Amino acid sequence: MAQRLYDQYRFLLEIDRLKTVLRQNVLTDQSRRENSAEHSWHLAVMALCLEEYAEPGINLFAVTKLLLLHDLVEIDAGDAFVHTPAEEKSQREREIAAAQRIFALLPADQGAAFQQLWTEFESGNSPEARFARVIDKVQPLLLIEATGAVTWRKHGTTQAQILRKLKFIAEDAPKLWPRIQRVIADAVATGALISD
Amino acid sequence: MAQRLYDQYRFLLEIDRLKTVLRQNVLTDQSRRENSAEHSWHLAVMALCLEEYAEPGINLFAVTKLLLLHDLVEIDAGDAFVHTPAEEKSQREREIAAAQRIFALLPADQGAAFQQLWTEFESGNSPEARFARVIDKVQPLLLIEATGAVTWRKHGTTQAQILRKLKFIAEDAPKLWPRIQRVIADAVATGALISD
Repeated sequence: MAQRLYDQYRFLLEIDRLKTVLRQNVLTDQSRRENSAEHSWHLAVMALCLEEYAEPGINLFAVTKLLLLHDLVEIDAGDAFVHTPAEEKSQREREIAAAQRIFALLPADQGAAFQQLWTEFESGNSPEARFARVIDKVQPLLLIEATGAVTWRKHGTTQAQILRKLKFIAEDAPKLWPRIQRVIADAVATGALISD
Repeated sequence: MAQRLYDQYRFLLEIDRLKTVLRQNVLTDQSRRENSAEHSWHLAVMALCLEEYAEPGINLFAVTKLLLLHDLVEIDAGDAFVHTPAEEKSQREREIAAAQRIFALLPADQGAAFQQLWTEFESGNSPEARFARVIDKVQPLLLIEATGAVTWRKHGTTQAQILRKLKFIAEDAPKLWPRIQRVIADAVATGALISD
């Protein structure tokens, strides 16, 4: 077999491991925690459904690619539930190293293109990356809302922590913001989210 | 909240259930069976990587959408491991009913568009649908190859059953066919696949 196809297969086999990376959120039926591969699928379908809440003229295929690929680094770096700047810096370093290792499995042209997509998502400096980052935060809230915010309750999460992470949505996808505000308010009202 | 966004959220919540639909194949680490949501993600990334083996001029975004959506019917119909024409007919009827129910959760315009994509995938009558159907068969073989064909061994699958399902790949993506032939030959050689 040609080396090129061999390398593509090696990458495609390696990324199977994303299915074993567990996130903090649980599925709507609360049977288990969500993994990062099925989460990425949910994000991509969500982007297809919610395109109309993005900036006009956005390239939806680019958004989809960003969402399908952005969590691959968790194969090495795990899914972090980080709240402090020091934790964020350390996690960030692990993710950069992971991107370099994983995308290097591909033929050089494809690896470079995927690396660029990952960097674009992380930087958030395109309309597509901004919308992808909105979707990446809206999907967990769907599960939070459906499960009585069991994840926030378990972790002793505070309203300030959540607002710090989510407030950019008010600007980047303002039509999606009211429901997010309501999810947060409901969680505070039931004591699932600590008011601070 | 506007009814439109409410309906979109209802659909996005409903499809979370695809994460609990189990397929026959196991993950490469053999820790558990694969579910249909993470499978759909793997397919979409695979299409991004293997575009060059499709017919020239293909619309890769269309392929990606077909792959992200085509398994949603399994929420109602399950993932079938069918080998007889009667089983196939019955499964097909369940899937048609499932598509009607699930896509009807969306606003009418989006539901119709998704239904059309599902029908396109099933019919296989576009270059995009043909390539999507190739990818949908190549991904399981990646897991079969990585796990010593444990799934075929467990089910007493025969070479003829597999060839009947896969032989279209020789025509639709001929460059991918040699490795598939090798996986089948290796499985026959080790007794994981029954030679008939």
